Amino acid sequence: MISVKEALNIVLSVHKSYGTEKIELADATSRTLAEDIIADQDFPPFNRVAMDGIAIVYFDNVMPYYPIESRVNAGDVPVPIQSPGNCIEVMTGASLPDGCNCVVPFEHIEKFDDYYTINQNPKAWQNIHKQGQDAKQGNVLLKKGNQINAGNISIIGSCGYTQVLVEKQPKIAMITTGNELVDVAEKPLPHQIRRTNNLLINSILKRIYLTAQHFHLEDDEVSLLNALEKLSNEYDVIISSGAVSAGKKDYIPAVLDKIGATTHFHKVNQKPGKPFLFASINRATYFGLPGNPMSTMVCALRYLVPFLGGSFNAGSYELNHDIEPFSKTRFIPVVRNNNQISVLKTNGSGDLVSVKDAFGFIEIADNQTLNKGELVPVISLGS
Amino acid sequence: MISVKEALNIVLSVHKSYGTEKIELADATSRTLAEDIIADQDFPPFNRVAMDGIAIVYFDNVMPYYPIESRVNAGDVPVPIQSPGNCIEVMTGASLPDGCNCVVPFEHIEKFDDYYTINQNPKAWQNIHKQGQDAKQGNVLLKKGNQINAGNISIIGSCGYTQVLVEKQPKIAMITTGNELVDVAEKPLPHQIRRTNNLLINSILKRIYLTAQHFHLEDDEVSLLNALEKLSNEYDVIISSGAVSAGKKDYIPAVLDKIGATTHFHKVNQKPGKPFLFASINRATYFGLPGNPMSTMVCALRYLVPFLGGSFNAGSYELNHDIEPFSKTRFIPVVRNNNQISVLKTNGSGDLVSVKDAFGFIEIADNQTLNKGELVPVISLGS
Repeated sequence: MISVKEALNIVLSVHKSYGTEKIELADATSRTLAEDIIADQDFPPFNRVAMDGIAIVYFDNVMPYYPIESRVNAGDVPVPIQSPGNCIEVMTGASLPDGCNCVVPFEHIEKFDDYYTINQNPKAWQNIHKQGQDAKQGNVLLKKGNQINAGNISIIGSCGYTQVLVEKQPKIAMITTGNELVDVAEKPLPHQIRRTNNLLINSILKRIYLTAQHFHLEDDEVSLLNALEKLSNEYDVIISSGAVSAGKKDYIPAVLDKIGATTHFHKVNQKPGKPFLFASINRATYFGLPGNPMSTMVCALRYLVPFLGGSFNAGSYELNHDIEPFSKTRFIPVVRNNNQISVLKTNGSGDLVSVKDAFGFIEIADNQTLNKGELVPVISLGS
Repeated sequence: MISVKEALNIVLSVHKSYGTEKIELADATSRTLAEDIIADQDFPPFNRVAMDGIAIVYFDNVMPYYPIESRVNAGDVPVPIQSPGNCIEVMTGASLPDGCNCVVPFEHIEKFDDYYTINQNPKAWQNIHKQGQDAKQGNVLLKKGNQINAGNISIIGSCGYTQVLVEKQPKIAMITTGNELVDVAEKPLPHQIRRTNNLLINSILKRIYLTAQHFHLEDDEVSLLNALEKLSNEYDVIISSGAVSAGKKDYIPAVLDKIGATTHFHKVNQKPGKPFLFASINRATYFGLPGNPMSTMVCALRYLVPFLGGSFNAGSYELNHDIEPFSKTRFIPVVRNNNQISVLKTNGSGDLVSVKDAFGFIEIADNQTLNKGELVPVISLGS
């Protein structure tokens, strides 16, 4: 049986591109750039005043007083300074008047009727954000392949892009099977439970701005075969929960054989989620997640989310107790108390209720011992 | 001047509720519960088979062989066992047949024509997830005030809620001012720059599933006064960028006085973002962010996001070099290399380009020294 690390490497190695599309910049957060972003002007585009104060011509010494010649606000067309002994009132964001080479802030000057005095020795070019200091026109500011964050949005906008070329997002289908499952709106019979793994998966996907179309299938081989044949030609990613274990009705492995899918692996040395199956079917990448809610959740967070380019890293926290080694890699829900985490007791991978207080999961490699006080990274549950 | 900590305490203390609303469960990720979630049945609702195998009646000893009486799949109505010496094939998720008290997994049994033998001694109640073991009907599973994550979605669905009562999200307005600012689609004149702080704020808000309506105002006192009077009766949160500093056109403090706003604080001992102003105007909470892009970004991440219930904690990383103390709290962009972070050089708070490679910001308290190797929490840039 392969390890979690091997499984993850395989999952990430089949990652594909789904083409590109132009979208509005305002919608581009978290999307992946499919073009370089190029500065269409210098940054800043002019000698930009960086403090409110007066602009002067400065060489070695301060004059006894500086007659006020004019004022330049941000957005004003600047008039060059007329006399090198005068000053011009300037505001942050304004374009520095030609001829000036120094901005003295209000804190260091005193105003009289029509002139200022300077009470602290300035330096040439102080408080001036010089044209082209951050970047030159024609520079590549962001590269193809970058994931766009809030700071990037500002940079792209500043370069005049109202639209941006990005990688297309995958079309995702989510299949649930299982005759014991009824809709949330129904009152289950004594041997039934409500179907929520589709809600779970979509909640996780929402965190990375994706969504899956849900299909609930009859619990038989023919329905699944027909659905997979059809969906694998229409969707880029297919997720299912259940029917991958060793049970008599766990026919997914057999169905995959029949439709000529490539099964990359089936079963991972992990708990929960051991029966996880990963395959390629026609154009689709297929995640056969085990159906127990904890297994579905862990496999989605650990394999599906990274495959889709997301990350649910919640930071590292100090473990509040020792953890004994075990033969499989374990994913264990934890509660958080400030900077400390402790393991949540659960009644197995069917115990959905236990995660109600969970801050996230920790991953403990097979045969790894963890000691109290160790810093352990947490996979967030994605709120 | 107040400290970052004092400022944050004040911001969080004026947090209000905006009423409640019923929404579809599928849309409830990250929302705050406004009702308790109650189990409408036991969890699990029946004695649930936890492994594929056979169900038997077990006391002290294993029989030589167990004739197969029937099979129960998940979702089947279970038939009670007829004879205590027989077995029933059961699949994970099935309801345990009445009379049985033990599930022996396929790994520990061998099948012959019409009977099984057991090759490892079982225990009573093994591999049975007992009815009500996780929670009892009537238990409160999630409390009012909880933020709903992916795991919670499953729990709420399992209790039969197709809709859920949540706190309403605030209605948010974003004001930009500044005559030097032109639209992204325009080619700026030599003294102008493109307006992107509205895009920046909406990119940050998107990360917490919120959005702001954007208003760009004429750069004069009357326009701002009229806008604030109107918007503060229609919106719950108003954000502006710019016009809060000491410049001649930074008239926001004066406008707030005129319309009878309560200014909670103006100026924080931090760099960048010192002129940050926080106030209440009619029904609205007002964030007067400084206009420099780095200042806007830092104040939004450090004050606005926590106020709105979000968190951009990206975990802690090892600092790659020492950082000298300084008289103000600083927010400094960092680059990340695996588990290590180092400070990014910038040309001041107007240097937007420098954040293109930033993983996030670190916060260094006033007069704090940081040493190489220290673990420092990072505020994410929200991709």
